[in-house]
Amino acid sequence: MARDEFRFRHTLRVRWSEVDKQGIVFNGHYLTYFDVGVTEYYRTIGMPYPNAIASDGADLYAKKAEIEYHASAAYDDLIDVCVRVVRIGRSSFEFRIELYRGDELLVSGSLIYVNANSETRKSAQLPAPLVDAFRRFESVAPEESGATR
Amino acid sequence: MARDEFRFRHTLRVRWSEVDKQGIVFNGHYLTYFDVGVTEYYRTIGMPYPNAIASDGADLYAKKAEIEYHASAAYDDLIDVCVRVVRIGRSSFEFRIELYRGDELLVSGSLIYVNANSETRKSAQLPAPLVDAFRRFESVAPEESGATR
Amino acid sequence: MARDEFRFRHTLRVRWSEVDKQGIVFNGHYLTYFDVGVTEYYRTIGMPYPNAIASDGADLYAKKAEIEYHASAAYDDLIDVCVRVVRIGRSSFEFRIELYRGDELLVSGSLIYVNANSETRKSAQLPAPLVDAFRRFESVAPEESGATR
Amino acid sequence: MARDEFRFRHTLRVRWSEVDKQGIVFNGHYLTYFDVGVTEYYRTIGMPYPNAIASDGADLYAKKAEIEYHASAAYDDLIDVCVRVVRIGRSSFEFRIELYRGDELLVSGSLIYVNANSETRKSAQLPAPLVDAFRRFESVAPEESGATR
Repeated sequence: MARDEFRFRHTLRVRWSEVDKQGIVFNGHYLTYFDVGVTEYYRTIGMPYPNAIASDGADLYAKKAEIEYHASAAYDDLIDVCVRVVRIGRSSFEFRIELYRGDELLVSGSLIYVNANSETRKSAQLPAPLVDAFRRFESVAPEESGATR
Repeated sequence: MARDEFRFRHTLRVRWSEVDKQGIVFNGHYLTYFDVGVTEYYRTIGMPYPNAIASDGADLYAKKAEIEYHASAAYDDLIDVCVRVVRIGRSSFEFRIELYRGDELLVSGSLIYVNANSETRKSAQLPAPLVDAFRRFESVAPEESGATR
Repeated sequence: MARDEFRFRHTLRVRWSEVDKQGIVFNGHYLTYFDVGVTEYYRTIGMPYPNAIASDGADLYAKKAEIEYHASAAYDDLIDVCVRVVRIGRSSFEFRIELYRGDELLVSGSLIYVNANSETRKSAQLPAPLVDAFRRFESVAPEESGATR
Repeated sequence: MARDEFRFRHTLRVRWSEVDKQGIVFNGHYLTYFDVGVTEYYRTIGMPYPNAIASDGADLYAKKAEIEYHASAAYDDLIDVCVRVVRIGRSSFEFRIELYRGDELLVSGSLIYVNANSETRKSAQLPAPLVDAFRRFESVAPEESGATR
């Protein structure tokens, strides 16, 4: 995926506590970076989490994560977290996320979230304002899978 | 403090993700070890957190932590987390905690918790069953500061 | 995959610091559980990391991770981390990992590691003793992809 | 300590993964915030860690940490990490650190670091350029304990 398909980018700096004995970021911490990126994405599209998103007893839950490690981030590196929504379904949607240090792609991956009732965990239709905000924000239209309205 | 003044000990193993570029456990992670030790201490004295402890709208909150670093824990080390209650007040109490690798003292410190209303954060008297459990369990009687009954 | 295809299982307890505001383990921490499981797997097959594995200037690096979240782990849960090697290539191999609470599958996923030179990050053939240890240990023979000997 | 005695301040945002079931930052994570603040302090005074500081086989090691919890940081809060050097000795020095949310003091504490040989852990004189940088930067002169030149 070309980097210019991402309208959203958030920059963060690698912390000392995130780097392991190999001198590189521990593989699990990239999901923390994904999460920080997603938080700022929600804020940027005008749907800050959780207040604008969780409602009617439903909330978003991680359903699937994929991470490919191309190169390693090191201590003190400035990392660009690029986030975009690539697929919208009835109750779930998918983020594509890429981490760059300058022009170098370090890590790429995806996060699928499902909207579900907090008690029963039964899936629930995505809030329409969230879907609208995704569509308005993205310059490359997300794939639509299933009826979303 | 002599190690034999601790009746309670919990052993854990240092994880890869807890070790930094210097090859030693990041200084903040010892508070996670303290917390794991305290959790198991509560279980051992018959007062598992939070169900047996938090009640009447009150809960325990960390008030103060002190940590002295004598030597470093390394990857894969087995660490004994020794915990005892050394002081009981009206609404607060203090843990003394020491971490050993075999006979070597690595880290020592203390944690003070206060019982407080979860909404107002106003301090509240410690639950009597918790205080009783501390007194019954400890072989070296905790110092009593302020009227506790 | 059936649970009885795993010869290896390591049990850990969910820590307070790993649970988020939703009352469930933060999605990234499952990779820490994967890592703890993998560490103990290496120990069990007689190839403790890193001493028995990293050599000749090469080391193992995470190449890809996949995680599917079926149900949530909560504070204080005891989690069985089941680990097996399902594929062995020339320079890389793949773990299949499943997390259970009792009989309930919570999380499943995979981790692909590649053996690579620590300086150049050029891939290097897997150490033969490691491959042999995988083959000896697993009761369900790993798939072999590419010539490994 | 008055907030205007701090020349240095670094702002960070509380991450989702740092907040626990009580809805507040886990007590150990404040040491990560301390560490991020200290990293940026070193950069600001022209002595970026580790390149400008660790030398001659010596490095800085945490010796003691103290943390007082006055109020809780919550998810998404913007936190000002205020850092200053309050004491300089021969081989060690002390940071005073205060965390604010707006004008509200949340957490205060101190970190003592010692310069020590990385192999023997024997204490070593602080690098003169580091001590000079501390003195030049701080508007409230650090206390001097022991001969430092």
